[in-house]
Amino acid sequence: MYQTFDVTARPEQGPPRLKALRGVLADEGLDGFLVPRADAHQGEYVAARDARLAWLTGFTGSAGFCVVLRDRAGVFIDGRYRTQVKAQVAAEFTPVPWPETSMAAWLRDALPAGGRVGFDPWLHTVEQIAQTTKALAGSGITLIETANLVDRIWDDQPAPPSQPAKIHPLEFAGESHEHKRARLAKTLAEAGERAAVITLPDSLCWLLNIRGADIERNPVVHAFALFHADGSVDLFADLRKFEGMAAHLGPEVRLAATEKFLPALDGLDGPVRIDAGTAPQIVANRLGDRAVHGKDPCALPKARKNAAEIAGAAEAHLRDGAAMVEMLCWLDAQPAGSLSETQVVRKLEEFRRRDNALQDISFETIAGTGPNGAIMHYRVTEETDATLEDGHLIVIDSGGQYLDGTTDITRTIPIGTPPQEACAAFTRVLAGLIAMSRLRWPKGLAGCHIEAIGRMPLWLAGQDFDHGLGHGVGAYLSVHEGPQRLSRVSDVPLEAGMILSNEPGYYREGAFGIRLENLLVAEKAPNLPGGDDHRAMLHWRTLAFVPIDRRLVVPELLDPDARTWLNDYHAEVVQKIGPRVTPPAKEWLDNATAPI
Amino acid sequence: MYQTFDVTARPEQGPPRLKALRGVLADEGLDGFLVPRADAHQGEYVAARDARLAWLTGFTGSAGFCVVLRDRAGVFIDGRYRTQVKAQVAAEFTPVPWPETSMAAWLRDALPAGGRVGFDPWLHTVEQIAQTTKALAGSGITLIETANLVDRIWDDQPAPPSQPAKIHPLEFAGESHEHKRARLAKTLAEAGERAAVITLPDSLCWLLNIRGADIERNPVVHAFALFHADGSVDLFADLRKFEGMAAHLGPEVRLAATEKFLPALDGLDGPVRIDAGTAPQIVANRLGDRAVHGKDPCALPKARKNAAEIAGAAEAHLRDGAAMVEMLCWLDAQPAGSLSETQVVRKLEEFRRRDNALQDISFETIAGTGPNGAIMHYRVTEETDATLEDGHLIVIDSGGQYLDGTTDITRTIPIGTPPQEACAAFTRVLAGLIAMSRLRWPKGLAGCHIEAIGRMPLWLAGQDFDHGLGHGVGAYLSVHEGPQRLSRVSDVPLEAGMILSNEPGYYREGAFGIRLENLLVAEKAPNLPGGDDHRAMLHWRTLAFVPIDRRLVVPELLDPDARTWLNDYHAEVVQKIGPRVTPPAKEWLDNATAPI
Repeated sequence: MYQTFDVTARPEQGPPRLKALRGVLADEGLDGFLVPRADAHQGEYVAARDARLAWLTGFTGSAGFCVVLRDRAGVFIDGRYRTQVKAQVAAEFTPVPWPETSMAAWLRDALPAGGRVGFDPWLHTVEQIAQTTKALAGSGITLIETANLVDRIWDDQPAPPSQPAKIHPLEFAGESHEHKRARLAKTLAEAGERAAVITLPDSLCWLLNIRGADIERNPVVHAFALFHADGSVDLFADLRKFEGMAAHLGPEVRLAATEKFLPALDGLDGPVRIDAGTAPQIVANRLGDRAVHGKDPCALPKARKNAAEIAGAAEAHLRDGAAMVEMLCWLDAQPAGSLSETQVVRKLEEFRRRDNALQDISFETIAGTGPNGAIMHYRVTEETDATLEDGHLIVIDSGGQYLDGTTDITRTIPIGTPPQEACAAFTRVLAGLIAMSRLRWPKGLAGCHIEAIGRMPLWLAGQDFDHGLGHGVGAYLSVHEGPQRLSRVSDVPLEAGMILSNEPGYYREGAFGIRLENLLVAEKAPNLPGGDDHRAMLHWRTLAFVPIDRRLVVPELLDPDARTWLNDYHAEVVQKIGPRVTPPAKEWLDNATAPI
Repeated sequence: MYQTFDVTARPEQGPPRLKALRGVLADEGLDGFLVPRADAHQGEYVAARDARLAWLTGFTGSAGFCVVLRDRAGVFIDGRYRTQVKAQVAAEFTPVPWPETSMAAWLRDALPAGGRVGFDPWLHTVEQIAQTTKALAGSGITLIETANLVDRIWDDQPAPPSQPAKIHPLEFAGESHEHKRARLAKTLAEAGERAAVITLPDSLCWLLNIRGADIERNPVVHAFALFHADGSVDLFADLRKFEGMAAHLGPEVRLAATEKFLPALDGLDGPVRIDAGTAPQIVANRLGDRAVHGKDPCALPKARKNAAEIAGAAEAHLRDGAAMVEMLCWLDAQPAGSLSETQVVRKLEEFRRRDNALQDISFETIAGTGPNGAIMHYRVTEETDATLEDGHLIVIDSGGQYLDGTTDITRTIPIGTPPQEACAAFTRVLAGLIAMSRLRWPKGLAGCHIEAIGRMPLWLAGQDFDHGLGHGVGAYLSVHEGPQRLSRVSDVPLEAGMILSNEPGYYREGAFGIRLENLLVAEKAPNLPGGDDHRAMLHWRTLAFVPIDRRLVVPELLDPDARTWLNDYHAEVVQKIGPRVTPPAKEWLDNATAPI
């Protein structure tokens, strides 16, 4: 489905719904209720049925939660959403800066001892409930498990998604699900665990080589699973989704209706692994002392892409790169002042859809021109849609879901004549992208150890940006995939086969934004002549091939090695993408990639 | 006292001592006894009385421990000492690679259930005992507190050190001890703690503005203290050390004999803070449940140097830099093949002592020529003393203790014509030193976040080195001072006023070693034109000014910014050090610092 630009928040709908919810609170003898953004699968996106936070408050951001009390309702949002929340919620809701103010601190301030706050144990993780319970210790305020009270007042709540599951072919998966299950079962057995509970849709899809369409932009199937130490799986889902899948799943994957999931937990012998960071509290409740905490057993194996997945990602990036080049060629031909952001978004999606390989875009395209470019998670609507004016930069961050891979790429393009200070900042952002792209590092290091390499050129000029340098990316799965990140908070060692984004940026509020993003795959680095042969080292291979706008580069701010990298990269772009684009785009490409 | 080059290890002395110790084990009904390197104050250096590990085994390294059982004796040593230990201990001792093999794993292998292993609770930290006890859980092996059994068989054990304490003048300390105590007492009171136990000599010396000479190369006083939340201190020490100090200490610092320390713990009301990483187990035993774990309250305040300490460090470095320049000038005048390592060490100490400001060298000078340069913690002895031959590099890592500051500097010098691959590696080490020296970074980051900046040039060539990039340094105190480090394992945020070393290196076993080291002080970075004024950033100011050998630099391997840095640095060396050296050294200096 093409991206739309509707204004979905209607602040005036919030207050009557809030009033109705407070009525239920009174009936239940509760003083409050927690309304998170998340669903039971803790994904970044939720189905319409699970958009309870947006339905109640009007706030549509991808992170946050609301705490509804009898006399006040706090909408907790992080720094990205400070401005947005004000426009989206009615005065009856109070924005609360989070994590600066914790839920527990706010509750302590708002409620007396004896306060009872309800929550739906499907929608909160074991870790979240443990942390909040601990932080409330001594306050006399307690968290009370209850049914979902929003669902009770939401008359026209949509049904849960039930799109059919599809086989993810071995050609793209690179490893049969039988083999994956056998391999991972060993790690459970070695840990002395009888089973692991899997609640993350992308883990389950990876494990069973299936994909789905339960969530827009994310080719996942919503289901729960018990993964046993003998390699077999009990899969709990809406049975209609799996019609015709029996042969693919085979006898070791037993299908049952979603309602059977909790009773099945009762029948398990312990120890059973749950991931406290993602498993719903209700799972821990049912398992009691049979539960042991550990990482989702699929998380790291899924992050280590195999040869087929890497080859698929490379091919997907060439296809996607050709669409990007067509769009950039088209964009350059439009005079300043003639286009708006939504036109760019539509045109880009049109180019992506042209060869029918696109399954979906991988997230809502961010296209922010001028001051809108400085809003890091900008999603254009009919109301905010701005014209691309002379002197603007436009940040275009987008991607595609293809059967062979997921892409995510950002380019920043000047409209007319860009301001000089934007060119200097762009060149520093580029220098950071290049420094990380060229890096070679000893095996064992994590994102927190090397992220600085991509920021240093900005730091030296007294500049920086307020997001991580990069995130993991799935193989025709989530565009944001853990556990590894290029971030100061990530201590997960980087390994060969991991795909990450490299996306430094710079944002000047009210003026302009800059971001450049390529996906990279970590590989074992070959020994170098004169190097230390006994050291295991990794390096990156770049997957994305789309020109970086030379009009924004100040050559004398790039050191000679960086200039060489850029020219070599552009030569590779022409070689790889040139044969895939139309003649006018090829002519544009040759110009756009001339050496500096 | 001038550095000596005696061979102190006599492997043949170990076996009879081991036999005697096993006799005591039998008498005590124990199956083993732990012999650590550390004393009760957990310093890097120990007094002669506390050199139990070396006395028993012959091993003289600065880290390690021995576990003596009835039938075997393991000497646990880390990677730095694998070669050294073989030369120093008799066949009755078995070197054990540590931390690869933990003490607990080794004990589980060596002893049956019911095994009883004695230890002296003064010499092991609370953390060490807790970790080992936990790792032994279920094995049936127990740790048993006992008197020190080595002391029982060591007939001519030296007495504890009892050098007089001296006042550290306010001119150098920059803050009176009354003010320090009042300031830190607030943090105890705010934490609801009644007192903190201080067992680290450098913490105590910093807090009370005193220095001493109980340990070679470390101007510290051995003592214990109770720091109360009212700002007063009970100080437990050999009373003779503090004769004449009453006026300096004042009425709020109460002096008592060392033996009164444990009984005084009994009389304290809790909670009492102990630092589990440094406090002896016996302290935790005496406090029982009145103990709460926290950081030594002096650790961070001591690490944040004040203006007087920074000015003192800068002046100490100029004085020390002049001595280094005299030595380098002298060294360059000696023909290849005419000098040995010990001669270089003696000559350097002679230049350092010339103006009588030197209190002591700050550690045993490392002077390793040719293959010896690749031994990271090389200490030359009469036996290993090597000649500086044509084609060698010599690594000279040394420092001084001055009343106004502690220095630590490393330079690598070519003898005759250096091999080309050594020059390339040297240039990469230099590029790393420069990249870190030039860095500017957002406040809040720790060593683990920025250390990569100093390694990247080596990484790109497939090279690396196996030590941290830098360590904290005291103000006329320990040359290795925590808690901050430039290391992948350090998550202590860097703050203005912290002094650290910046010492990248490269080591090719059997061939050559390279290390360059300057001390740096972190400072608030000024805003830059066009920079983000709202970001608090830090940068470094270099304290050390000694030429970096241009004969080892391959200019085309340095980017233009790095070359500019080097030329600017050398201009500053001439300006700051030139006026402090003899005319021949000034002439040498002018040559050595010519622009590249």
